[in-house]
Amino acid sequence: MENLICPGFMAAGVASGLKKAGEKDLAIIFSKIPAKVAGVFTGNKIKAAPVLLDMERIKSGIGQALIVNSGNANCCTGDKGLDDAKTMASFAASGLGIPEDRVLVCSTGVIGEPLPIDRIQQAIPGLVDSLRPEGFYDLTRAIMTTDTVPKSVSRQGKIDGKTFTVIGVTKGSGMICPDMATMLCFICTDINADHELLKKLLDNATKRSFNRITIDGDTSTNDTVIIMANGLSGAVIKSSEHMDYFQNLLDDVLIDLAKQIVRDGEGATKFVEICVRGALSDNDAHKIASTVANSNLVKTALFGEDANWGRIIAAAGRAKVPLDQGKINIFFDDVLMVKNGMGCGKAVEAEATRVLMKPEISISIDLNMGKGCASVFTCDFSVEYVKINADYRS
Amino acid sequence: MENLICPGFMAAGVASGLKKAGEKDLAIIFSKIPAKVAGVFTGNKIKAAPVLLDMERIKSGIGQALIVNSGNANCCTGDKGLDDAKTMASFAASGLGIPEDRVLVCSTGVIGEPLPIDRIQQAIPGLVDSLRPEGFYDLTRAIMTTDTVPKSVSRQGKIDGKTFTVIGVTKGSGMICPDMATMLCFICTDINADHELLKKLLDNATKRSFNRITIDGDTSTNDTVIIMANGLSGAVIKSSEHMDYFQNLLDDVLIDLAKQIVRDGEGATKFVEICVRGALSDNDAHKIASTVANSNLVKTALFGEDANWGRIIAAAGRAKVPLDQGKINIFFDDVLMVKNGMGCGKAVEAEATRVLMKPEISISIDLNMGKGCASVFTCDFSVEYVKINADYRS
Repeated sequence: MENLICPGFMAAGVASGLKKAGEKDLAIIFSKIPAKVAGVFTGNKIKAAPVLLDMERIKSGIGQALIVNSGNANCCTGDKGLDDAKTMASFAASGLGIPEDRVLVCSTGVIGEPLPIDRIQQAIPGLVDSLRPEGFYDLTRAIMTTDTVPKSVSRQGKIDGKTFTVIGVTKGSGMICPDMATMLCFICTDINADHELLKKLLDNATKRSFNRITIDGDTSTNDTVIIMANGLSGAVIKSSEHMDYFQNLLDDVLIDLAKQIVRDGEGATKFVEICVRGALSDNDAHKIASTVANSNLVKTALFGEDANWGRIIAAAGRAKVPLDQGKINIFFDDVLMVKNGMGCGKAVEAEATRVLMKPEISISIDLNMGKGCASVFTCDFSVEYVKINADYRS
Repeated sequence: MENLICPGFMAAGVASGLKKAGEKDLAIIFSKIPAKVAGVFTGNKIKAAPVLLDMERIKSGIGQALIVNSGNANCCTGDKGLDDAKTMASFAASGLGIPEDRVLVCSTGVIGEPLPIDRIQQAIPGLVDSLRPEGFYDLTRAIMTTDTVPKSVSRQGKIDGKTFTVIGVTKGSGMICPDMATMLCFICTDINADHELLKKLLDNATKRSFNRITIDGDTSTNDTVIIMANGLSGAVIKSSEHMDYFQNLLDDVLIDLAKQIVRDGEGATKFVEICVRGALSDNDAHKIASTVANSNLVKTALFGEDANWGRIIAAAGRAKVPLDQGKINIFFDDVLMVKNGMGCGKAVEAEATRVLMKPEISISIDLNMGKGCASVFTCDFSVEYVKINADYRS
C-alpha cells in the first residue's frame, strides 16, 4: 500500500447499511480549503442523478468536498433521485460546516432503486468524525462494488523546487467500456492550477487512460472522474513546460488506475494489451484495437489459452477501417504468429500458446500501412464473468 | 422435418475427413439446368478465399452448382487458399460435367489452417454419386460447425396460377452479428427472375433477417447468402405485384432461417426479441435494439433470469442516439416494468421475473419520441457460451 496522503485533504469511509453484508459503502473527501475542481462524466445518454447534479455544480470550478456511496447508483430514480442527491450533499455540507454547493456527489451500484437516504443521513456524523488524512484507504474500500481489490495510486512531482502530490482512487470491474470516463475516479492534488486548465489536463489524461480500457463493452450511467486541486503545495502551473510536466504525471496516475481496473475485471484471469500499429491513422488503430479488445470470441479464446489468431484478424476486419489482409503481422508478446495475413505454423503456435499461459500478455497487430498506432487494455472473458453477472442482484 | 425439395435441384452431403469425428463435412447443390444466381457477402474486411472467388464468379449471374465444406474456413490462407478454392470448384465441375465457372464455393470452420484439398478430391466421386432431390437434409448436416441442429425452411407460392417453391438452408451458432449477411445460407427456387432482380430481392430480405440478429457481436469472414433460381416452375416475376409477392415470401424464408440461427446460439437458453419503438427514426431504433441485443450485461442478466432493467436502459443510453430518459417505457412481454424512465416496483418485478423464466421473451423499449421502430433477435449469454469458445479448437 502506497502512502495515500495528500496535504490538505482528508477522507473517510464507513458502513451505512446500503450494502447487504455490513461492508463500507459511504465515503467522503474533504479539502481544508476550497479547491479548484474539474470533472469528466459518462457519455451515456442515461445519466444518474448525482452525475446530473455534479455536471451543474462543477461549472463553478470550486469544490471542497465529495460524498460518494456504493450499493445504489441513484440512476433512473426521477425527480426523487435528484432531490436525494442534493439532500446527500446538504447532509455532508452541514456535517462539514461548508456551503452545500461546494459538495459534489457520486453514487455507484444497482440502477433503478430508490436511494435509502435515511441510512445515509444517520451515517453522516460518524463519517465526518472519522475524517483523517490517511482515510483514503477506507474510501477505496467504501466505493467498491464487484471489485475484489481497492485501487489507488500516489505520485509526487516538483515544480520550481516545490514538491507536490497527486493521489488517485478508483473503482470499477464490470460495465467497463471507454466512453469519456469509466466508473468512479477521484484525484486529489495540492498543486495550484485554475479550473479551465485542470479540465483540459483531465480530459487529455482520461482519453489516454480510461478511454483505452474495456472489460465488457458496456458503459456505465454513473461514470465520473473528478480532480480536486487545493494549491497548498505552493507549486503553480505557470508555463507550458509546467503544463507538460504535470500532464505527464497526471496521465501516469490515470493510466495506472485504469490498468488496475482491467486487472480486476470481473472474472478476469489475464491482463492483455492490444497494440495496433502501422495503421493509416491513430484513430483507425484505436478502432481496431477496441474492436479486438471487445470481441467475445477473442476474449473467450484468451481465457481458454487458445492462440486462435483467426478470431483476432476477423475482429480487426470488422472494425470498418481500411486494411490489407496480405500485409498484417500479429505478435503474441514477441512471437510472430501471423505473417502477411497467414499463420506461421504449428511450431510457432506452440510458442504462442506458452505466451498465453502468462497472466499478462501483449498482442500486437501490425497493419504495415502507415504510422498510426494505439493500445487498448483488456482482460479475458471467463465462465466466472457470466456467473457474476447472472447473479449480480440476487 | 419439412419437405425439403425444390424441382430441378439435387443435393448431397458426405464425410470427407475434414471434421474430426467422421461427421458429414462436404456438401453440394446442383441444378439440372443453369440457374440465375445472386449473393450477399460478409462486410468483414478480412474475407475468406471462397468469398473472394464467389464475389467474382457471381457477377456473371449464372451458376449451376455450389460446393461447400465445414471444418475449415479457408480464410487467411493466402494464394494457396485461393488456388484451393478454385481446385475445389474444378473437382466438383469435373464430377458434374459442367464448366468450372458455374460452380460457387463456400467454406466454414477454423480460420487460418490450410484446406486439406486432397481429402476433398477423394470425396468428390462419392459426393456426386449421392446427389438426389431429397439430399438437402444431408447438406444441412454437412455445413454445421458448432450448430446443434440442422436449419432449413420450405415455402411455396403461386404466380399467374403457377406454383413455385423456395427452400432455404443455413448454418450458424457463433461469430454471429449482423453485417450484410451471417454465416452460410443457400436458397434454391424454381422461380424465374433475372440476376439483377434476384440480387435486389436478396439484399432486401437479408437486411430484414440476417442483419437483424446477433449472438455474440462478432462478424464472420465467411458470411455468404446465395440464391439460385432455375425457373423450372414456369412462374415468372413480371410485374411489381409479383415482385412484392416474392419479396414477402423470400423475407419470410430468410427471417425464419435467421431465427433458427438465434435459437441455436452457442450456449443459448433463451430466444429474445428486442423491439424498440417510438424512436425518431427506424435507424435510431435499430441502433438501440442492436446495442441492447449485444450487451453482455443484458445477456448475462437474461441468462440469470434477473429482470435487471437498469442494464437495458444503460445499454440503450450508450447507443449514441437521442433519447429522453424521462419518457422511456420498457415491457417484458406485456408487463410494464419501467414507466417514464423509472422502475414500477418490486411487485411488477416479480411478474417480469416470471416472464424471464420462459424460453421465448420479448423486450419492448418505447422511447415515446417518434414513429421509428426496429426489432433485433438475440439470445442470452451463458456459462456454456464461454466454455464452447474457450475450447473451440481443442
